[in-house]
Formats: sequence, C-alpha cells, structure tokens
Amino acid sequence: MRITGGLWGLRQEINRQATIPLGLEQMERSGVLSNLRIAAGEASGDFQGYRFQDSDLYKQLEAVAWEHARQPGEPYQTFAEQAAALLARAQRPDGYLNSHYQLVKPDRVYAELEWSHEMYCAGHLFQAAVAAARAGLAPQLVEVARRFADQMVRVFLDGGHDGVDGHAEVETALVELYRLTGERSYLELAAKLIDNRGKGLIPETGLGPLYAQDHLPVREADTAVGHAVRQLYLEAGVVDVALETDDESLMECSVRRWEDMVATKTAITGGLGSRHDGEAFGERYELPPDRAYNESCAAIASIHWNWRLLLATGDVRYADLIERTLYNAFAASTSADGERFFYVNPLQRRADLVEDAYLGRRRGWFACACCPPNIMRLLSSLGHYVATARDNALYVHQYMPGTIDAGEFAVSVETDYPWDGRVMITVTRAPATPWSLMLRVPGEGYTGHPRTWQVGEQAELELDMTPRLVFPHHRIDALRGCAAIERGPLVYCFEQADQDVEDLALAEDAQLRVVHAELPGIGRTVLIETDALRVTEASQGLPYTPHHLATSTGTTATAIPYFQWDNRDGGAMRVWVPLA
Amino acid sequence: MRITGGLWGLRQEINRQATIPLGLEQMERSGVLSNLRIAAGEASGDFQGYRFQDSDLYKQLEAVAWEHARQPGEPYQTFAEQAAALLARAQRPDGYLNSHYQLVKPDRVYAELEWSHEMYCAGHLFQAAVAAARAGLAPQLVEVARRFADQMVRVFLDGGHDGVDGHAEVETALVELYRLTGERSYLELAAKLIDNRGKGLIPETGLGPLYAQDHLPVREADTAVGHAVRQLYLEAGVVDVALETDDESLMECSVRRWEDMVATKTAITGGLGSRHDGEAFGERYELPPDRAYNESCAAIASIHWNWRLLLATGDVRYADLIERTLYNAFAASTSADGERFFYVNPLQRRADLVEDAYLGRRRGWFACACCPPNIMRLLSSLGHYVATARDNALYVHQYMPGTIDAGEFAVSVETDYPWDGRVMITVTRAPATPWSLMLRVPGEGYTGHPRTWQVGEQAELELDMTPRLVFPHHRIDALRGCAAIERGPLVYCFEQADQDVEDLALAEDAQLRVVHAELPGIGRTVLIETDALRVTEASQGLPYTPHHLATSTGTTATAIPYFQWDNRDGGAMRVWVPLA
Repeated sequence: MRITGGLWGLRQEINRQATIPLGLEQMERSGVLSNLRIAAGEASGDFQGYRFQDSDLYKQLEAVAWEHARQPGEPYQTFAEQAAALLARAQRPDGYLNSHYQLVKPDRVYAELEWSHEMYCAGHLFQAAVAAARAGLAPQLVEVARRFADQMVRVFLDGGHDGVDGHAEVETALVELYRLTGERSYLELAAKLIDNRGKGLIPETGLGPLYAQDHLPVREADTAVGHAVRQLYLEAGVVDVALETDDESLMECSVRRWEDMVATKTAITGGLGSRHDGEAFGERYELPPDRAYNESCAAIASIHWNWRLLLATGDVRYADLIERTLYNAFAASTSADGERFFYVNPLQRRADLVEDAYLGRRRGWFACACCPPNIMRLLSSLGHYVATARDNALYVHQYMPGTIDAGEFAVSVETDYPWDGRVMITVTRAPATPWSLMLRVPGEGYTGHPRTWQVGEQAELELDMTPRLVFPHHRIDALRGCAAIERGPLVYCFEQADQDVEDLALAEDAQLRVVHAELPGIGRTVLIETDALRVTEASQGLPYTPHHLATSTGTTATAIPYFQWDNRDGGAMRVWVPLA
Repeated sequence: MRITGGLWGLRQEINRQATIPLGLEQMERSGVLSNLRIAAGEASGDFQGYRFQDSDLYKQLEAVAWEHARQPGEPYQTFAEQAAALLARAQRPDGYLNSHYQLVKPDRVYAELEWSHEMYCAGHLFQAAVAAARAGLAPQLVEVARRFADQMVRVFLDGGHDGVDGHAEVETALVELYRLTGERSYLELAAKLIDNRGKGLIPETGLGPLYAQDHLPVREADTAVGHAVRQLYLEAGVVDVALETDDESLMECSVRRWEDMVATKTAITGGLGSRHDGEAFGERYELPPDRAYNESCAAIASIHWNWRLLLATGDVRYADLIERTLYNAFAASTSADGERFFYVNPLQRRADLVEDAYLGRRRGWFACACCPPNIMRLLSSLGHYVATARDNALYVHQYMPGTIDAGEFAVSVETDYPWDGRVMITVTRAPATPWSLMLRVPGEGYTGHPRTWQVGEQAELELDMTPRLVFPHHRIDALRGCAAIERGPLVYCFEQADQDVEDLALAEDAQLRVVHAELPGIGRTVLIETDALRVTEASQGLPYTPHHLATSTGTTATAIPYFQWDNRDGGAMRVWVPLA
C-alpha cells in the first residue's frame, strides 16, 4: 500500500520533513554516532548515554530505510550508507557489536544479560538491516547484521550459552533476518531464546522475575505481566517462531495472553501498561486513567504483535485492535507538528498538577529515547499494515487514501476516513480470474465475495460514524460511573482549552453533535459537542461524607479526538467523564 | 493516661509480649547491633543492611523506654543499658555516630546528605534518648545523644555547613532534646534546618526536588508532596519549632498543608501516600484504593504531626484525625498476634493477583525495617496521645479504659469503645476548685463546663455507634460510584474469607446490621451484615461497550473492621464497594 493522502499521508509527510530530520540531528547530539566512532577507533572521548544507546540509531536507520522505499533520495541515502559503514568499522572482528560494552565493559560481554540490552540492540540492528535490504539501501547493513547474528549463533546456539536477554526484542528480529537470508540457525536461535525464558536463567535484578517475563515458561504464562514493552516484543517473536516452525502450542499461548490482555489490561485507546513503577502491565482490570503508563513503544509493539497474529490467523479482531491502537494510543504519541513526543500516554491529566507537572506534555527528546525513533519507523512503514492478499482475495484492513498493489489485482482507495465514513475503492488492475475484495467492517468482520472485476469498477463502503457513548466493564474500578465518547475509530477527550474539565459530567442519554472544524495548532478535526453538567461540591475536611453533597448545573462541552490533545495548552484532559 | 484494658490495652500487652521481643531478636539477626560492635572495634565483619540501619535500634530503644515507663522490668532494662553503653563505645570522640558512615564511608561524613540519612538516624537517637530520660532508663543514652547533637551544632550551626538531610526527622527530635535539656542551640539548629529546606541545598537524587520537599521553602509550600513520611516528619518539626519560637507564619504554613492534605490526599483510613513510585503523596484527589501506598510509618508520622497541632491549637479536628488514623491505618499495620506487619496498606486487594501477589499480606520483618519498630514505639507510648490538661480543664481526646492523672484532678475511664459507644468516667481525685471535664464527641467538638467534682462522681458519654454508608467527594475519580461502611471510628472492609468480593455491590439504602462476634484468628470484633448484590458481566473482547451489560442478583455480605483484615487468608479485600 502506498499512502497518498489523508490523515496518515499527512503524518507520513510530517514524519519525513520534520520528525526524522530531528531524529538524525539527535544521533549526533545525544552521542549515538560518537559512541560508535570511538568504538571504531576514529574518535576519542567517553561513552555517552544509556547502554542501549546504539538501538536509537538502529530504529532511526529502519525509519530511513522505509522512507527510502517510499521515496528514494537524499539526505537519507547518504546517512544510511555512512552509518552502515561506521557500524562495519566499529564491529569487532568476531561480529560482536555494541558500543557500550566495547567501550565501557569489554570484559562483561554477554555476562550481564539481565540488564545489558546487548541482544535487544542486536535485534534492532537486524530489523534495520532487513528494512534496508527490502528498500534496496545500504547493503553493508545486512553484512554487519549477519556477522553479528552469526556470532550470536556461535555463542548461544552452538556454544551452549543459555543466556537470555532481560529485554526481549531479538527474537522477532532473528526470524525476520531468517526470512530475508534463509539462514535457519537464526530461527533456531530465536526458538531457543523463547524456550529459555521462564526458567530462571535471567539473574534477579531487584525488580522480580515478572519484570522480564521470566516467572514462567512462555508456553505456560496465561497473562501479560511486567514491563509491557518487553512482554509485547516477546509476543511478536513468539508468533513469528510459532508460524515458521508450525508450533501450535506456542501460537496458542500467545493468543491466550492476547485474549486476556484485551479483556482486562487494555486501555480504550489501545494503550498498554498501567503502572509507572516497572513500566508494568499491572493486575487484571487495573486501568487507571491518570496514572496509566501506556508507553508509546508499547502501542507500537502491540501493533507489531497484532499484525503477526492477523497474518497468522486472518482474524479480524487483530485488525480491529491495530486500528484502535493506531488512531489513539499511537497517533497521540506525536504532536501535530511532528516535533514533540509522548513517552507516557495517560487518559487523564488533572488541573493544577504538582508532582506530575512534567507528565502529559510532549517533549522534544528524551535521555532514554526509545520512543521517538520507534514512532518514526512505524510511520515510515505504515503502508505495510494496511492490506494483505491471499488466495485471490485482497483484504483491506485499514482505510486511508492511496494505492494497493497485490500483483495481478490492484486498487486505489479514496476516503476521508476517519473524519468521514465513506470509502471508495476503484479497481486499477484485474485479471480475468475472480478476486474477492474483502473490506473490513470494524467490529464485524470482512465483507466481500469472489467475482471478476473490470478496471475502473468501484466498490463503496459506508462506515457508521455516529458518535457513541461507551461504558467500562464493571470490574474496572478506576473508571466506574464514567463514559467515554467514540466516533469511528477515534476515542475522544475533553481538554481544558475548550472548557473546565475537572467538574464535568455527562448525562447517560447525552446527545452528541458532530462538528467538522479546523483548529489552530491542531488542524483538521471533528469535534463532538454535547450538553453536559458542571458539578459543584464543597471540599473542606475529609472528602468522605454520609450524604452525597454534589450539585450540578447545565453547561455544554466540546470533545476533541484524543490523539490531538496537548497541541494547545498544558491544561487538564480527560477521556473518561463521570455520568451525572 | 495509663491504659488498662480494652482494644488498646490488649494491643499494648501483645506489643510487650510478642512484638518487641521479636524486634529485639531482629536487632541481632539483621546486623544492627553487629554494625555498632564493629564500629566500636569490638567485632569484625562487614556492615550489614541499609545505611539507615542504626535507626532500627533507636526506634526499638524508644519502644523499650516507653515500656519501661509503663512497667519497669527485665529484659528491657538490661537491653537498653547495654545498647546505650555500646552506642557510647561506638561513638566517635567528636560525638558523631553512624555505623554505616564510620565503617563504609568514613571520608563521606555529611558529604552526601541527600541520601545519607545521617541526621535522620541522629533524630531517632535523640527521640530514644528523650524517651529513656522520661522513663528513668539508661541515662547514658542522653549523654550519647547530647554529644552527637553538640557535634551537629558545631558543624551545621556554628560551622556554617548549610547541608540538609534528604529525609526530615531530626528537626522534631532536636526540639524534643531541647525541651529535655534546655539547650537552645538544638532548637536553633532545628529552625535553621527547616528554613534551609526548599533552597536547592539538597543535591539532585534523580527523584526530583519534590521527593524530599526541597522544591519550595517550607513557608511557601501549599500542599504535601513527595515521599510521604519525609513530609510528615518534617511537619512535626515545623510545628515544634513554630511553637517554641512563637513563629506564626511557620505554624500557618503547616496548618495550610494539613487542611489541603485532609481534604484532597487522605484515605478514609487516615492512610497517606498514594503512590508506590517515590512512596509519594501524589496529586490532589489521586486516591486509588488498590495502588495506595499508605505506608505504616506515614500513619505514625501523621499521628505525631496531628498531636503537635492539637497541643498547639486545641482544635478538635486534629484529635478526630488521630482517632481515624489510629483505629484504621495504624491498627491495620500489625496482625492480631503482633508478629506480622504491613509496610503498605492498600484499601483494596484484588482476587487472583499476579504482579501484586506479595502485597496485602503482612510479613514478619523487612530488609528496610522502618515500620515495625515505629509501630512498637507508638504502641508503647499510646497513653501519651489520649488526654491533655490546661487551665483547670481535662480534655479527653480518645476513649480507652484506664486512668488519667492530671495532678490535682484525676479520673478513671471505663468503656468498651470502639465496640460499644458508652464511656463512663469516674472522678478519682478532685480539688475544691472547679475543673472542666472536656469530652470529645467525634466530628463535633468537646463537651463540658467548669464545676466542682466529688471523688466518685461519674460522667457518662454515649457515642452514636450506628453504622453508616459514606460516599467519596466527586473529584476522587478512583472511588466514584462507591460507598464505604463506617461505625464509630472504624472503617469496614469486605474480605474474601466471608464472601466473593470482586463482584459485590451495595444498594444506596442498604440496611446495616450490627453483629458482635469472636472470630478465629481475629478475636473480638463487630461485624456489619447487609443485603447486597452480586454483579455478573460477560468479559470477552475489549471491556468497553456502548451498552451497560452488567446484571445483578441479590445476596448478603459481611464486613469486618478494616484493621482486622488479612488475619485469616490472602484473598481479596475491599473497603470501597460499588453502589448498585
């Protein structure tokens, strides 16, 4: 799929013009390239940043590669070639590559995998290399990746080293590198790393074995736990290995955890991870809107996992969750101008914050900069997640304007989704044999049947875009007595820029009015206006009384799409609003 | 006040017979005494435990001293004398005393106050010494304390060192030592330390300046923030200094923060601190029942602060909060047998915990053992917090059986409170001049007027013990749509041992029935039985739907006093129950 316009076309353009250049600048400023130059013996100085600093470059390179595939040209091509050459020079003769360990702890290579992120960084290198190969860019990157992967195979597969990286990531990357190269030992190593997890092979870090999903063997764990991004990257690898090795029990355990996670641990935005401490999932139904972590990387990792499950099963529920995550948890991670990022994505920001004043405001970069380049690589490769083809059927999972080429069958898509529900698909290439054009109806499934198509023929889908109130499951304590507004794939929120948010309440039968608008700082949007209530309650002494003391008066309120929040001010925001 | 029976008399007896002996044993087992022996040059080995390990002994000694005052005897007297002698031998010639810094970092004394806890430990030593002096026990302890305090005065007051300990505690202790000794430089040092806070003199720890209340000068801060125990110990010192120096603006700032804290940051149990990360207060109205921290030490520190405010102002609201905290947040911190302790006191424990399985169960001891000896010293000194006398008036703030001696006026108290609301007070000594017997009616104030009393005359108070539903302020998002049960000073909870807790709901007009009972593992109690509802709701796919899907059926439910939870099983518990 080539995206040519609409919300995501604009986002891709901003990503190319504003976000990626900002990221490339940070590769110098935050010491990422300097670390590698020192490791290559071409510069002097101290290692800068976290021990996983190399991974910033790898994700950045992956974004550059996918950009090259979308639209070849400078300065991205030169950056990729120079970076690949630098990596080749920094790489040890045996293939190992990690600037932190080479510079700071050369005698501790693979000796402290619980925290080292060595395999995690390697995984991001492999993913960048696969992207470069698919984009026809910087072939040296695949050479570097293969030398490193071969070294890992020698140590961890042939050499009998049973180490497991505390941060899963390399598993899915190894399978991708296997798919690219056909080198089966990469797949075998991925399978071994997955089966080694949960056997107590990861030394205690002080955060407990759940943090790194080492509490139970992968096949036995029923629920997503611990550090959310670790769990989610692990799941992508689990599905990859299960698919490539036809391992049904491995696939089943991942689906089982997916079902549990969706039913009990997923925010309405698709956000994942309820806790700041340990950046962890938390307990079932523990879904606080204010203290939710919902790391941007977790949304991206969730899309990776769901995409693999969708490819493996064809089940629409994975495409549904990708859409929810994409338009809400993921889309919110970047400002409208593409220059500021959320690391944490809560569903509520109170007024007059004291301890959390730093939260709920996007920032230009982070000392731990895992999220921004992760956002960039997903945006650059977003076209990959839109459609699939199989058995003379084209499945369109997401709706955005552009062209989808499935070989002998191709279509163009015109739509103003998510602002409007109409999707018009025009066949641009068709064989004489029948094809099915399978269009996803969110929450329902795929509609379509085999038929022969003429070039120029059109199929039209009209998705219901009536705004709706939604209510939480009764076990979600933190959302009890509240409702949220959705329209199409978009979750809405109330922001301080439009009204006082703290004491707002909605009637259960509130009429929701759709208003198309163009807002300063935000751009194109669809607002939801509604009659609402403003609650007043004295607050002196303890806030617990034998009588309900709150009273309310009528007002109106305006909601904006959640992903567009914090583009105007730093005020209060809430997705879930009390019912009157 | 000498407590002679009832709930708190029993608790004091268990404290003496079971808890303190267990603590003394831990002084050996956890290396506390060994550290000091090594510092005294009488043993060899490595320092064990946290850098504030000495403070465990000091709090333990304080408990032993108050026990000696209640009932002199062995083995407590010998323990205290031997410990005081050991401390004297371990103390540096210049008066400095801290086994961690003397053994591990002798060149870093007072050089890393942001984390060192040197003054914090000193404060606990001073408090133990004051207790010992008042109990007529181990006079060597006051000598040790004075030598250390004099050294601190030389360094921080005369020497111009502007350091501030990251953990407030020494301020209130210095004022107590001043009260005992009349040495004014201790008071001056306490005042200086308080005024130095909030000036950026505490180096950054990575947790931000709010963590240690260094974000604003004490007089300017409007709300309690950061590490709850630090804030609360600081407030005790603030009130002490304000009172002793007649500093009105200092007193006012503490009262201002108290009012804000009570209205927006206090759990119904009196628990304080909403966050695991940073053991912090959190934002206004951020009061999650499940992830509340409510450290046992915070409840104790709150009682210290409230007691000082009560002494300074005579305002009944401080006595009310002491009662709430005492019977709920504090009482819950110890098991019925006195041998297990909570560090964290949440108001909800879910069923089938995975990540939090370690929470919501009391434990025998902790690596960071600040809470258990803190509990012991408050229990041993509980009689101090019951009554005050002034201007020929005896104020009785809390109701427990025993004798109150105000010099020329004395009474005995008979009551079965909190199980029953009747309080009978008999005058046991009275002068010819009129005295007022001022009895606190919770939430209302003090009742009484001057009159002459005859020995043997009685006053009776009948407190309303009708159980009641209470509702949270509408801004407390985490408790919306819920109610809790209270009876007298007791907050109630529903525990898994009595029924399935997860799907329970209450009608807003639920009839609450009082049942006196004796339960295995718990002992004497008063249960509340009520008609209730059991909610059923399908849970597949995302837990957000456009329609309310929950249905409910009738059931009955039994609540027990919150402080008695976790004495039977490790199951679910909740204080706040959804309204049907």
